[in-house]
Amino acid sequence: MSYNLLKGKKGIIFGALDERSIAWKTALRCHEEGAQIVLSNAPVAMRMGEINKLAEKVEAPVVGADATSMDDLKKLFEEATKHFNGGVDFVLHSIGMSLNVRKGKSYTELDYGFNQKTLDISSMSLHRVLRTAWDMDAINEWGSVVALTYIAAQRVFPDYSEMADAKALLESVARSFGYHYGVRKKVRVNTVSQSPTATTAGSGVKGFDGFIDYAQKMSPMGNATGDQCADYCVSLFSDLTRMVTMQNLFHDGGFSFTGVTPEVIAQMGK
Amino acid sequence: MSYNLLKGKKGIIFGALDERSIAWKTALRCHEEGAQIVLSNAPVAMRMGEINKLAEKVEAPVVGADATSMDDLKKLFEEATKHFNGGVDFVLHSIGMSLNVRKGKSYTELDYGFNQKTLDISSMSLHRVLRTAWDMDAINEWGSVVALTYIAAQRVFPDYSEMADAKALLESVARSFGYHYGVRKKVRVNTVSQSPTATTAGSGVKGFDGFIDYAQKMSPMGNATGDQCADYCVSLFSDLTRMVTMQNLFHDGGFSFTGVTPEVIAQMGK
Amino acid sequence: MSYNLLKGKKGIIFGALDERSIAWKTALRCHEEGAQIVLSNAPVAMRMGEINKLAEKVEAPVVGADATSMDDLKKLFEEATKHFNGGVDFVLHSIGMSLNVRKGKSYTELDYGFNQKTLDISSMSLHRVLRTAWDMDAINEWGSVVALTYIAAQRVFPDYSEMADAKALLESVARSFGYHYGVRKKVRVNTVSQSPTATTAGSGVKGFDGFIDYAQKMSPMGNATGDQCADYCVSLFSDLTRMVTMQNLFHDGGFSFTGVTPEVIAQMGK
Amino acid sequence: MSYNLLKGKKGIIFGALDERSIAWKTALRCHEEGAQIVLSNAPVAMRMGEINKLAEKVEAPVVGADATSMDDLKKLFEEATKHFNGGVDFVLHSIGMSLNVRKGKSYTELDYGFNQKTLDISSMSLHRVLRTAWDMDAINEWGSVVALTYIAAQRVFPDYSEMADAKALLESVARSFGYHYGVRKKVRVNTVSQSPTATTAGSGVKGFDGFIDYAQKMSPMGNATGDQCADYCVSLFSDLTRMVTMQNLFHDGGFSFTGVTPEVIAQMGK
Repeated sequence: MSYNLLKGKKGIIFGALDERSIAWKTALRCHEEGAQIVLSNAPVAMRMGEINKLAEKVEAPVVGADATSMDDLKKLFEEATKHFNGGVDFVLHSIGMSLNVRKGKSYTELDYGFNQKTLDISSMSLHRVLRTAWDMDAINEWGSVVALTYIAAQRVFPDYSEMADAKALLESVARSFGYHYGVRKKVRVNTVSQSPTATTAGSGVKGFDGFIDYAQKMSPMGNATGDQCADYCVSLFSDLTRMVTMQNLFHDGGFSFTGVTPEVIAQMGK
Repeated sequence: MSYNLLKGKKGIIFGALDERSIAWKTALRCHEEGAQIVLSNAPVAMRMGEINKLAEKVEAPVVGADATSMDDLKKLFEEATKHFNGGVDFVLHSIGMSLNVRKGKSYTELDYGFNQKTLDISSMSLHRVLRTAWDMDAINEWGSVVALTYIAAQRVFPDYSEMADAKALLESVARSFGYHYGVRKKVRVNTVSQSPTATTAGSGVKGFDGFIDYAQKMSPMGNATGDQCADYCVSLFSDLTRMVTMQNLFHDGGFSFTGVTPEVIAQMGK
Repeated sequence: MSYNLLKGKKGIIFGALDERSIAWKTALRCHEEGAQIVLSNAPVAMRMGEINKLAEKVEAPVVGADATSMDDLKKLFEEATKHFNGGVDFVLHSIGMSLNVRKGKSYTELDYGFNQKTLDISSMSLHRVLRTAWDMDAINEWGSVVALTYIAAQRVFPDYSEMADAKALLESVARSFGYHYGVRKKVRVNTVSQSPTATTAGSGVKGFDGFIDYAQKMSPMGNATGDQCADYCVSLFSDLTRMVTMQNLFHDGGFSFTGVTPEVIAQMGK
Repeated sequence: MSYNLLKGKKGIIFGALDERSIAWKTALRCHEEGAQIVLSNAPVAMRMGEINKLAEKVEAPVVGADATSMDDLKKLFEEATKHFNGGVDFVLHSIGMSLNVRKGKSYTELDYGFNQKTLDISSMSLHRVLRTAWDMDAINEWGSVVALTYIAAQRVFPDYSEMADAKALLESVARSFGYHYGVRKKVRVNTVSQSPTATTAGSGVKGFDGFIDYAQKMSPMGNATGDQCADYCVSLFSDLTRMVTMQNLFHDGGFSFTGVTPEVIAQMGK
């Protein structure tokens, strides 16, 4: 179903790895809603080749970019604005990676070199994207930027480890840059704090299945799916949400404001 | 412009006093987006007669209801479900009144009898509305309820007085009932925390003009207007936001996460 | 052990029912730290007679007062200031009661008459206490007021029912009145959000044992005890915390900022 | 005045630059309260030589340490535990520095190399300190760690620039490590969010005077001083606050929960 909510809008979507990715699903929904899209992902992720299937479906060029490289980002925005023949209306930032988690290093034994890369890739990349756009004046007035985050930025989920800190930093960057871009050009910047989602990336976190089950039991409406997250992003890219900015928006079936549920208490007694 | 976002949906809108009301504007936008509507307001507010103009425009019946009366609310839902020939998909709660503010009694000299009425009208009315619907099973699965609130629930704005407490209570009721309705029927309940808006009701607060100017200077994008709030409510009533529940959502051009701005600092030096 | 932290200070402590009460333990600790005390409780609670044992230990008069009666509160402050031969330095508000919970009425079937009493007793009583003191100018400069609350004010714990709303209202009253009393006389007002504690009052909540076990498993340091809460209150009444005001302070072994723990996840698998 | 609140306790205090420093004042107060202290600062800061005056007053050795060097931190904890002839009971982390702010680079023109150093010095240094202690098991059971932060971590103060992000990251590290240290050894970790304070470091921020005046006008009790912050830290290092952990504690005269004040509104009209 389409409402043509994004008709005439142009957006860059980062981070579509495969069809389980939220970015993938968001690209599909934005296309359905009438938007033109440019896809981007890290060169290493693109080598898997899946993204080309998506590119075909949403009639989008794919421009590889390492989100920690200012040169790559500049080239991306140049190609995008050329393709769009104009500025960008929305951006989805779905970029995150923890080297320490990958290498099995727990929070109390972080490798600080890895940590620096984690923060650069997962958090400061949002600053780099926005700053590239800022310098090139590449986002149109009333543009909308969304970055995906997770509630570990507010509360400790031990296995999420350094990614919690990275998400807290990401959310702060969204607020800080959101302030400046709001003043200058009425561009809004928000983060969406999504339920744990069984994506290829998410599955890498230790104990993810037990955790996803817990979140399901702790959410009055159950976990939000990737498809539902794509819908929500569409609403945030549309003109209906123009004055929502610098917010962290929970999209989680109520998990964030639920203290306990009978299902969880029942498990405690076992 | 219409996207037909609410095509086939049916909603009750409380609190449209005159054309400056957010509820009024929301009714217009919901109608544009294809929704069927029933309007309700307190008998005393309806005597002013303005609401009939709106009723004509949005082709809606008007059913008077004192939101502190269970009998009135039951009658309202009965008439609405009869009119809709089915359940309700969305509800806007825009109800609030402070007798102490009206009577010029400051926060440190509250009349407790008035205060009880303020809480009953402004906060517990949301519980009564939801409970009436709950008992009659009158809200459809995936329904959406929005109540309007203000950031005074989180931070003190001295002239807002007891309405701050009333809004804190209102937001808690939204969370609490949102939990139960989410579990039972995937109905979501949220509050929208709107910029100060020059409605007829808002204008009653002492020093409102100075305050609205301050909020304008403290919001990176400026104050959100009533029309923009109506747009935002449409997005929250639509199927794009199904998993957002039990949240307090700031719609304020960034005011809520701005600590200070150069404009405000500049005024300090004068 | 005593540090004489409250030497020369005078305080009113509401809500010591029996030796399991946090108020009881706080009275003992304040006395140890050199404070003079006046005890108060509702006439009905006093009839149990336990409070007289405490009164003896802490050498305090007991003044019965219904915290919803301005006459009773006035009389209490008159007797207290007379006994102290001067103003009050600190107040502990440990007052709360839910008629609906007592009567077994769940959140979706509240009796609104009971609810009004719950809010009056559990929340607005703080306003009444502060307002009585305000009118009589009975709290000394740099005085400190603490009200006990619970995290259900922020997140839904279904069985806590209407008390969640009452605590949200209480916390708002603390902020609102804290603003005014801070401006006028540098009196600070805070709420302490304590771990679930096995007091006689707490035990009345349905499923309390299962819940206390869950909280224990979800708190990195375990649940905070009533004795530890008394210690914390002493620190908040002391001169070391003069500029902390209008805050909700979690005293819960880390529960409030923990998203999940391995112990809880382990239970999920059973 | 002394209560002997920290009698027998041993602590490391980072960041005493000169007598205006909060760390300096905290060292003095901890000493008064009976604690033994080891002082540490960055070699470059120590070259100014002021710290030796403090060392004399509080009878503490000074151990230089670059808080981004694991070798330095290890050496520091070795010397401290040797000096104390046992473990550490408390730590004050008052470390922060923004190269971009110093170099006059605004938030939209950050040098990313500088930014990396800012985050390493101001935020990840807390992880390094805690991790060093963790590996050496150098903090005693029921130990207390406090890091100083600022409300820019929650709300944008444009001139505070990248330090806002650094403080958000710092607060996340406190929560994350606080979880682990709480589980392992009942060590608590909190951040204190202090009013803007006219320290030598604080004065480096552009427009600091105008800002400090604004904060004064926006705080019901006025800005909290460095001396008052030292008192508050003493309470957090004492045994009275054992179950407070993973919290961000505002010490700001009410600024954090005040939306506006008449003084600020009055300035708006000028």
